[in-house]
Amino acid sequence: MSLFAPRSSADRRVTVTEVGTRDGFQAERTFIATEDKAAVIEALFDAGVRSIEATSFVSPRAVPQLADAGDLLACLQRPAGARVAALVPNARGAERAAAAGVDMMVCFVSASESHCQANLNKSVARALDDFCEFAPIAASFGVPVRGAVAVAFGCPFEGDVAPEALLHVIEVYRGHGVRHVTLGDTTGMATPPVVERAVEAIRGRFPDIELALHFHNTRGVGLACVMAGLALGVREFESSIGGLGGCPFAPGATGNICTEDLVYLLHECGYETGIHLERLCEVALQVEALLGRPLPGQLMRAGPRLRTRALDEVRRAVG
Amino acid sequence: MSLFAPRSSADRRVTVTEVGTRDGFQAERTFIATEDKAAVIEALFDAGVRSIEATSFVSPRAVPQLADAGDLLACLQRPAGARVAALVPNARGAERAAAAGVDMMVCFVSASESHCQANLNKSVARALDDFCEFAPIAASFGVPVRGAVAVAFGCPFEGDVAPEALLHVIEVYRGHGVRHVTLGDTTGMATPPVVERAVEAIRGRFPDIELALHFHNTRGVGLACVMAGLALGVREFESSIGGLGGCPFAPGATGNICTEDLVYLLHECGYETGIHLERLCEVALQVEALLGRPLPGQLMRAGPRLRTRALDEVRRAVG
Repeated sequence: MSLFAPRSSADRRVTVTEVGTRDGFQAERTFIATEDKAAVIEALFDAGVRSIEATSFVSPRAVPQLADAGDLLACLQRPAGARVAALVPNARGAERAAAAGVDMMVCFVSASESHCQANLNKSVARALDDFCEFAPIAASFGVPVRGAVAVAFGCPFEGDVAPEALLHVIEVYRGHGVRHVTLGDTTGMATPPVVERAVEAIRGRFPDIELALHFHNTRGVGLACVMAGLALGVREFESSIGGLGGCPFAPGATGNICTEDLVYLLHECGYETGIHLERLCEVALQVEALLGRPLPGQLMRAGPRLRTRALDEVRRAVG
Repeated sequence: MSLFAPRSSADRRVTVTEVGTRDGFQAERTFIATEDKAAVIEALFDAGVRSIEATSFVSPRAVPQLADAGDLLACLQRPAGARVAALVPNARGAERAAAAGVDMMVCFVSASESHCQANLNKSVARALDDFCEFAPIAASFGVPVRGAVAVAFGCPFEGDVAPEALLHVIEVYRGHGVRHVTLGDTTGMATPPVVERAVEAIRGRFPDIELALHFHNTRGVGLACVMAGLALGVREFESSIGGLGGCPFAPGATGNICTEDLVYLLHECGYETGIHLERLCEVALQVEALLGRPLPGQLMRAGPRLRTRALDEVRRAVG
């Protein structure tokens, strides 16, 4: 029996959460018009995507690209069943996000001290204290919170991250009612055994937590890590249309795993995502056109596996 | 226990066969000087690579890029334990290859009728008849033969390839003493379940055959297929330095899986290849410089997983 396939017919569903307009677009220097962002998200909805981390309610000064977070959400046409999440760093962000009608607020704390300092300019302890103040505010708006753990599979300053560091952050999240946790591979350091160790530690300690895995393909092994996640029974992954995004510590390296390549892999392995793969590839090409440069996604160029060619297209193809 | 890790301490060894100077270079239009090809191969040797499919003794008219096959092998300095293989399509090629001192001749037949016609201009039956004439000639030179099966995981003209088609070709190979068989993913149609089905069928029927898997990353899932191979106990993979090569049916798509990304994955999963990863990345950069364009390999840009950065390199890195 396949190690990666669904364990039963009731186990076919995998949630693919699109993060391209947040994790991808935030790295773009030129401002992308709000209506262009909305067009990408609506095209994703048309392709069947139902879970999206659309934007971030960080300080507009810190990330000007996402300064239009409220306007973007306001102008979206959401299909039934869509879950629109946004990154929310603090109480002010939560107010803006709630006013904009997000379905889920995503909070984040780094698993390592150095990355927390670098990214949030505070210690992990302080970031968790701030989360404890934040959680009741989010709750007061009636919006569920997802807890993300940044650099969960390795820190660019400290190297390996011990599972205990993940458990510590998740324990605080869980104490405030968080049930959905994302492990973020912020700089592309995840490998299959690192993923296995982290997921098994969390499952062992907090079996009620729903885990999502967020991989970057910085070192080429993003989908190999997805295979490890599937074998462990993880059924939610985050990815970026076209493979949008980058790694701030590796110039020229790719960013998030690519949504259409991920969906192709999932479908081929027997999972259902509700996503129409050919339409998804069209969205990836649309995003390439919008940004005016090639993106790292492969499937959009090669086309579906079983789109056969006529023999007169023949060229030598040894190997 | 990890599904992908070695099953015992005696099971750590994986052979990585480099095919870039054959499967990659054959797609290059501009002739690469023989001494530049030799320099790449010797740099690979210096990095610890010990198995290489260096070139092809096809007709120089058909593939002018590899017309220097004999000269290339003649000028190579081979370290102890190196295995230098070459593709050999016919008796004339075998004579040239034997004269050049190859350690292994690689023969190939397509698993599908249409691809065999397109690639070799003959039927599968005729290609296998030709192999039966060829095998005693190779044997007369005392050089072992590896049997490759092209389009083993899907045919760009016919779609899915039944395991029976692979078994048919392998049965003929095996009847002539072949014990090493490569399944070639010629146009990047392999997926984990397709790999599982093929490997299990062959293992069931021919348990004495040593299988190597040759994947292309045309649709982004090449290393996910390696994970399937590892879980099945396959311990030889073919790949291309820097991810050299392409797919003749998908303009712009990438070719073979990338050797340094593969070796990174294998080492991280607990396997030994005898290859020095940082030196291998330097060879990939050397090949990029030789060809004057970026190659798809990721690790050479991102660097090793645990090369940590100083905090003053800090930039915001959420997610």
